[in-house]
Amino acid sequence: MELPRGMKDFDMDEMIKIEYVRQIFLKTSKAFRFNLIEPSPIELLSVLEAKSGPSIRDEIYQFKDKGDREVALRFDFTVGLTRYATSQKNLKLPAKFSSFGGVWRYDEPQKGRYRFFHQWNIETFGNLNTEHDAEIIEFTSRFFDNLKLQNISIDINHRKLAESYISHIFESNETTLLHDIFRAIDKIQKKSKNEILQEYKQKGYSPEKLEKILEFSNLKGTPSEIRANFDTDQLAGWDELCILYDLLTNRGIDNIRINFGIVRGLDYYTGIVFEAFDSTSDLGALVGGGRYDSLSKVFGRADLGATGVAGGVERIILRLDE
Amino acid sequence: MELPRGMKDFDMDEMIKIEYVRQIFLKTSKAFRFNLIEPSPIELLSVLEAKSGPSIRDEIYQFKDKGDREVALRFDFTVGLTRYATSQKNLKLPAKFSSFGGVWRYDEPQKGRYRFFHQWNIETFGNLNTEHDAEIIEFTSRFFDNLKLQNISIDINHRKLAESYISHIFESNETTLLHDIFRAIDKIQKKSKNEILQEYKQKGYSPEKLEKILEFSNLKGTPSEIRANFDTDQLAGWDELCILYDLLTNRGIDNIRINFGIVRGLDYYTGIVFEAFDSTSDLGALVGGGRYDSLSKVFGRADLGATGVAGGVERIILRLDE
Repeated sequence: MELPRGMKDFDMDEMIKIEYVRQIFLKTSKAFRFNLIEPSPIELLSVLEAKSGPSIRDEIYQFKDKGDREVALRFDFTVGLTRYATSQKNLKLPAKFSSFGGVWRYDEPQKGRYRFFHQWNIETFGNLNTEHDAEIIEFTSRFFDNLKLQNISIDINHRKLAESYISHIFESNETTLLHDIFRAIDKIQKKSKNEILQEYKQKGYSPEKLEKILEFSNLKGTPSEIRANFDTDQLAGWDELCILYDLLTNRGIDNIRINFGIVRGLDYYTGIVFEAFDSTSDLGALVGGGRYDSLSKVFGRADLGATGVAGGVERIILRLDE
Repeated sequence: MELPRGMKDFDMDEMIKIEYVRQIFLKTSKAFRFNLIEPSPIELLSVLEAKSGPSIRDEIYQFKDKGDREVALRFDFTVGLTRYATSQKNLKLPAKFSSFGGVWRYDEPQKGRYRFFHQWNIETFGNLNTEHDAEIIEFTSRFFDNLKLQNISIDINHRKLAESYISHIFESNETTLLHDIFRAIDKIQKKSKNEILQEYKQKGYSPEKLEKILEFSNLKGTPSEIRANFDTDQLAGWDELCILYDLLTNRGIDNIRINFGIVRGLDYYTGIVFEAFDSTSDLGALVGGGRYDSLSKVFGRADLGATGVAGGVERIILRLDE
């Protein structure tokens, strides 16, 4: 008897590892006073589309239930937690939630990549300031410490910073342009500069201007290292990013740096963004997170800001195994 | 933003309770050396039908995936664990598995009953004897002890015992007859004897014969109490049931009794069956289990016997709350 394509059982050895990560996650969540919640595993398709638009249909398990409702299996915890938070009228703010469990994505299966896997997630909702972003990043760092994963480095940035520089160079703040260029920045990890310039020239973007953006997105280091190479005065979000840097240093987090190349793929981020990597591996980001005040707004609660971080459990296990 | 009909979020207070039950379950599983496994949450529909026939379609979430495969969300762990066990060629026997997590049923939602809920489950696969059934029942008893749930009583029976008596009274061992009468026995908890006799008279079953069966299914007590009221010599399974009773008594399990009315709804049970109740509540069975050697056979492994027990987590929480 076989399984549907892309699905798998988690055997004894894998469950021991997942349980280990789960216990450390729950312990760390508890220490930071995040409360464990499990949002529904099935959502209305319309709710899931609120985060990423109708194109999400191709990437998730969606179907009609027997009542002819368009529903889908959750593809992350962020949407469900935000729906939950925005639906609670008497939520004590800030509300701090954690989730751990399975999510489904209808990706093309590959070696070690299945259509059901485990995620951990924490989110804070409320009238937020940079302290709340700092707490999310501190959590991330402590979680990896508790897992005894060394060589983790956390790259922080501000979404508005890249936005303001792109607007400045291209003399436009048109949404399509911004998203196109964000995507170009995101590609620099995988493609050469020349490939990207060539591709975007065909789309009508000036290679000279784009080259400036790509150089900009290469800037990394401490606030003073960056200031030595770039005039940051006109950059939106720069001051908040420096405050965040100091807050984290004061909390004893020293594996951070500013990286202007971190913009995060999803369009819904509005402020601080960050990723964490294992510097001894080319596995890509272990973690992605940041401020996303826009999603609660879509759910009718403009008063609720949101910041959070999530990561894949199987990815952590791959690192622990090495 | 709302949820699909029958679905819910599990909030902080519920998660604390689910986590409590989960921890005690994992601790007890570990003490009994059951290994935690998570079978795939999505199965081929054909695999799920192996347990209960095509009628199961109406009671589960089934849909076609993007590859046009007929798939469904798991409705329990037993099918997935059996599929997993029968697919492993080098399984060390007996193989002892535990699972804990969410399952989906497309029931009509009611107060406190949703279409997604949590189950715990343990199963043993191999060349089994009554000791393995005894261990499953001992586990059940210790699990409730560890949860500090008092007033639990465990009713044991043997499927063959009811079968042999029905065959004797109706002078037939035809499958349809057996299943019809099993269902009549199952109804005695909810309906009066006269209602059942009336209903089955219309189906063509002799009320005199059925009344004998219902009286038989009322027998409860220790082996000697039952022997005092009934000649057990001709009953298939009686000796095995008495051996089980002694095995459990020797293991210090004293909240058991034989109950001829326990036959379990599902047609796949083949030997020892049991249910556990909270005697201070009319909530119905907290637990159902027994020997089901037939399912592994359907999956192509006639050499693998199976015995197990499962229960709903939310039901336990209802009892803990009281």
